[in-house]
Amino acid sequence: MKIGIYGYGNLARGVEAAVKNSADMSLAAVFTRRDPEKLTIKTPEAQVVSSNDVLAWKDKLDVLVICGGSATDLPKMTPYLAEHFNVVDSFDNHSHIPEHFAAVDASAKAGGKTALISCGWDPGMFSLNRLYANAILPNGKDYTFWGRGVSQGHSDAVRRIEGVLDARQYTVPVEDAVRRVRAGENPELTTREKHTRECYVVAAEGADKDAIREQIVTMPAYFADYDTTVYFISAEEMARDHAGLPHGGSVIRTGTTGLDGSTKQVIEYSLTLGSNPEFTGSVLAAYARAISRLSARGDHGCKTVFDIAPIDLMPISREEAIAHML
Amino acid sequence: MKIGIYGYGNLARGVEAAVKNSADMSLAAVFTRRDPEKLTIKTPEAQVVSSNDVLAWKDKLDVLVICGGSATDLPKMTPYLAEHFNVVDSFDNHSHIPEHFAAVDASAKAGGKTALISCGWDPGMFSLNRLYANAILPNGKDYTFWGRGVSQGHSDAVRRIEGVLDARQYTVPVEDAVRRVRAGENPELTTREKHTRECYVVAAEGADKDAIREQIVTMPAYFADYDTTVYFISAEEMARDHAGLPHGGSVIRTGTTGLDGSTKQVIEYSLTLGSNPEFTGSVLAAYARAISRLSARGDHGCKTVFDIAPIDLMPISREEAIAHML
Repeated sequence: MKIGIYGYGNLARGVEAAVKNSADMSLAAVFTRRDPEKLTIKTPEAQVVSSNDVLAWKDKLDVLVICGGSATDLPKMTPYLAEHFNVVDSFDNHSHIPEHFAAVDASAKAGGKTALISCGWDPGMFSLNRLYANAILPNGKDYTFWGRGVSQGHSDAVRRIEGVLDARQYTVPVEDAVRRVRAGENPELTTREKHTRECYVVAAEGADKDAIREQIVTMPAYFADYDTTVYFISAEEMARDHAGLPHGGSVIRTGTTGLDGSTKQVIEYSLTLGSNPEFTGSVLAAYARAISRLSARGDHGCKTVFDIAPIDLMPISREEAIAHML
Repeated sequence: MKIGIYGYGNLARGVEAAVKNSADMSLAAVFTRRDPEKLTIKTPEAQVVSSNDVLAWKDKLDVLVICGGSATDLPKMTPYLAEHFNVVDSFDNHSHIPEHFAAVDASAKAGGKTALISCGWDPGMFSLNRLYANAILPNGKDYTFWGRGVSQGHSDAVRRIEGVLDARQYTVPVEDAVRRVRAGENPELTTREKHTRECYVVAAEGADKDAIREQIVTMPAYFADYDTTVYFISAEEMARDHAGLPHGGSVIRTGTTGLDGSTKQVIEYSLTLGSNPEFTGSVLAAYARAISRLSARGDHGCKTVFDIAPIDLMPISREEAIAHML
């Protein structure tokens, strides 16, 4: 299976590693908006190509994994590319998923291609586990906790404050809230009761740290609704202690069964990720395998993780899976 | 969707409750090998029918859920019934799944019906989560822990010992082993290191308790390879403290990602079940919905949970799921 990667940031490098770790896949090309001459990738046998020349690869790839941002890149890239390639993206702007789906679906159907959007862990594996748990326990309540992990959006928001040289924001689930949910107490939890936020900030010399702290903790949408702690650290500490991009979290559904609805049942799916982009890249690679198969079967248009039969993610045969994994 | 239930034990009552809790399903009939006149079910609007007359219901049911034992019932029942009905079973004899699959597949294809075998939580949701986790993390190791929960097979084995009036056996995961796996230590664990067993026994008056204890802890296959603790209790304590059938467990895959394979990633799926048969019944009901849809689309033969696209388990539309659950 020949894979292409469109864009080359953290997520793309995660996909690149996942492809290398999959015996049935090889990376054929990376497409970049930068000067291809100046981009060095980790797979020597793959080509680095200008994104302007992507259509010349129309018949040379099984699946193109699009690694762009959800705010402005993917809403343009995925509908454009889905007409010419089988594609997978990680569009994560939840409220705009239906319109992104419609645009990609129209384009993929017009080109006789297969696309999958909003793949990764949230949206992706978390969505899938919410759906399975809801199907099994129609009477119940969903809880999602994120972290402990780095939120890149929140880190960026802190970096934009004057006097901030670098910043890393960790989202942290409130332990007692998780404990109560796992115990089946079905608590009603406010935003503040579910997560806290920790910011590690490198301030410019002479910057007003109190003013920075105040700007962070009162920032609407990002921090105002949370208990936020700000730690000022040195650039050396940032490089030493906060270089990774760990993340994770839990999707928990607590429900009841029985004729009188009195039996408690708890389903939990949890991720503890050493690297968010490497894990997301691994999910994208597995779904690229499925999309290549759907395309070969003539099943075109836009798909989501909800549409993919689990067996299509696996490199082994159905018979082998039934004999050894069921 | 009209559902039939074949057999009427604990699992069947779990399916009955799940059907009642699903707005798009109704229970049409329960088929029993006992005298139908003497069987009272919990759904007054459903009929109780002799299993001898099941074929008269050939065109009156969307799906027949077969609730028999895996040792002797299901290997006969499911292939026989799959020729005439869309069926779902919970066959859990792992090493015989391929031959059961082949028999049911031949029969369902001959009759133009759709069947699903080995559904529930293990096999079932645990298998599914092992498969998803393997697809995402090809480099890794699987761990399954069961419990704390009642094993009916082990309870029965203790009950067969002379002098034992009643018994309940709990399988208990070893906490330290679970902790080490979650921490990504990738330990090699023996059977004894993963689970302990607890037996609660009501002995006959004058029975030799030491002899009973000895027979339990040395019983091959069931207890000899485990650290087993035996507690003698009264019939009243048994009725008061051990009436439920709780169970659960965790499927954990620890793996690595990255170009040098050095990043740790942990995926865990955990169940805490107040009632094993009610949860299993709820899984069977959700998959009955999917099987009815596959049958309507002309997709016949035998399926497993690996073959079912998640969206087919849900009573809501694909559009609604994409808009609200992704």
